Amino acid sequence: MRTAAVIGTGLIGTSAALALTARGITVHLEDADPDAARTAASLGAGTTEESTEPVDLAIIAVPPALVGRVLAEAQRRSLARCYTDVASVKAGPREAMAKLGCDAGSYIGGHPMAGRETSGPLAARADLFEGRPWVLTPTAETATEVLNAALELVALCGGMPVVMDAAAHDRAVALVSHAPQLVSSLVAARLEHADETAVRLAGQGVRDVTRIAASDPRMWLDILSANAAVVADVLEELAVDLNTAVGSLRALAAGGAEGAEQGAAGIEAVMRRGNQGQARIPGKHGAPPTRYETVVVAIGDQPGELGRLFREAARAGVNVEDVAIDHSAGRRVGLVQLSVEPSAVHQLEAALVERGWDVRD
Amino acid sequence: MRTAAVIGTGLIGTSAALALTARGITVHLEDADPDAARTAASLGAGTTEESTEPVDLAIIAVPPALVGRVLAEAQRRSLARCYTDVASVKAGPREAMAKLGCDAGSYIGGHPMAGRETSGPLAARADLFEGRPWVLTPTAETATEVLNAALELVALCGGMPVVMDAAAHDRAVALVSHAPQLVSSLVAARLEHADETAVRLAGQGVRDVTRIAASDPRMWLDILSANAAVVADVLEELAVDLNTAVGSLRALAAGGAEGAEQGAAGIEAVMRRGNQGQARIPGKHGAPPTRYETVVVAIGDQPGELGRLFREAARAGVNVEDVAIDHSAGRRVGLVQLSVEPSAVHQLEAALVERGWDVRD
Repeated sequence: MRTAAVIGTGLIGTSAALALTARGITVHLEDADPDAARTAASLGAGTTEESTEPVDLAIIAVPPALVGRVLAEAQRRSLARCYTDVASVKAGPREAMAKLGCDAGSYIGGHPMAGRETSGPLAARADLFEGRPWVLTPTAETATEVLNAALELVALCGGMPVVMDAAAHDRAVALVSHAPQLVSSLVAARLEHADETAVRLAGQGVRDVTRIAASDPRMWLDILSANAAVVADVLEELAVDLNTAVGSLRALAAGGAEGAEQGAAGIEAVMRRGNQGQARIPGKHGAPPTRYETVVVAIGDQPGELGRLFREAARAGVNVEDVAIDHSAGRRVGLVQLSVEPSAVHQLEAALVERGWDVRD
Repeated sequence: MRTAAVIGTGLIGTSAALALTARGITVHLEDADPDAARTAASLGAGTTEESTEPVDLAIIAVPPALVGRVLAEAQRRSLARCYTDVASVKAGPREAMAKLGCDAGSYIGGHPMAGRETSGPLAARADLFEGRPWVLTPTAETATEVLNAALELVALCGGMPVVMDAAAHDRAVALVSHAPQLVSSLVAARLEHADETAVRLAGQGVRDVTRIAASDPRMWLDILSANAAVVADVLEELAVDLNTAVGSLRALAAGGAEGAEQGAAGIEAVMRRGNQGQARIPGKHGAPPTRYETVVVAIGDQPGELGRLFREAARAGVNVEDVAIDHSAGRRVGLVQLSVEPSAVHQLEAALVERGWDVRD
């Protein structure tokens, strides 16, 4: 790839343009608002001059409802040899393209799973897609050349390509993005008229649950409109569980042995399902959780013994990730299991032995 | 305060004991599980030996449903002159105490708004309460000496005392803690049986919304049981909004000009209410948001100009918090407004002027 066009210089379009420009590709920038395109150019994302010949790849970075029309218009003026988009839904745009008679062979759907709370070109960053999944939705009609151009785009942006069917994609983003967004807004909406003292008690939990409730309603209306039926399905399933949870709480509040037992079982069940679902979410960079190794130390029964052990580990520069203690060895001694990074095991053992601790094999 | 007792050496009890011990107070540790008390002592939180005379303050750090019984028993053996608890609900324990004939004058309800995902003494930290609200719920019966002992406890732990009525407290924590916890679990529960590919698409948004879904179901069952009716009320209000949102999405999915317009208005309304509610949540340390000042720089129309400006600001060691750009001054020049900490204004202006930028007043 030597040349590209970005249509729509918002957060995503400008970030992709910055990444491509940084890799030496000539990027032509367009936007319905010329100021937005000039701002992107001013950031170093490319040029606002039109290309005199078809570019290798055009990236359509406009709201989902406009993708079909913009693609049809771009194909009409032969803007590029290959086309992709970055819209956060995939089935709707494809239907619109079919209706508008677009050439399906030169297009591949795309959706980089990246974003920020702030929008517009000024929020753009060349590393926005680094390590993030980038969904591609080829069909039987998609030319191999087009798939490869999209794979090159993803690689140049540092993303991780994930090939999916358009409908499966839309269900997936409803589950992991669109429904959570609306639920976060619903939780935050409860605080709109809450007492000032109540809001003062907010801690990290509700702060995390409602962080994305600060998102732009206009942008989200575009996204949710384009995936409305699928999101409604997910939220209706959630509403069933919510009503069950309310019923369980009412049973607990009413007291009475049998009702309380059923209520407790209901609440515990939904929380355990939450544990299971939460555990499936991959870590920040999609990496599997680190496996720690264990260093076992026998400690005496004197007050403060464990505190001293932690201070010694800190002094040795070792981060203790988890700890468990077993008193069953007898009243006078406890076995402490320190979980640490595999690379730190030797260092910690050596430091503790040197300071006179009883390190066990 | 010279002496204290902590009954229940879990996360909260042990953390309070660590903070008090660090301030030179003799802390006597008790737990139904002697190993837990020994572990806390081993961490340096105090001694497992019983006090020979009444301590100044006893801190009851057991699950909400047990507070009444533990207080009654402690008062029977004259453990302390003043009593408080740390349970996350306040009305229920007070009713239990009245039924058990506890002395109301020597007790004051308390609830430090602090916690971690992990529980037990090994997760304890002396600085757990630093800067966090600590609710106290005195009544007309509470002796002034008891209120002052609790205020001293909060101060020694570095917390911020907030006096509230017990019922107002329970409604507040339902809003900012208990209901968000259950909703987080409900969102995470949707992922329990989701396709592996769908889960791979999870980003920071759903990760934040579901972080607390990893919490311990047993501990939360205790908390939710003790505040069940109030939490059910909050969740029923949320369910009404949820059903409205589903209706709006169905209207959007059905198409048709009028329905779509109503659906869009419904979704936008709930998201704007979410914006409002989210904005009321105080920052991490309860501090009001910083007010930034603006530095205005005129830039030319050359590609990359804004990128260079940001790099110069970074080189000057100034963090640009927000940026806005105004192209209306003409085609060849744009005015960039950089928002920075008030203390950084002079530094940034000096650095930019020195490097030849056109800084405006």
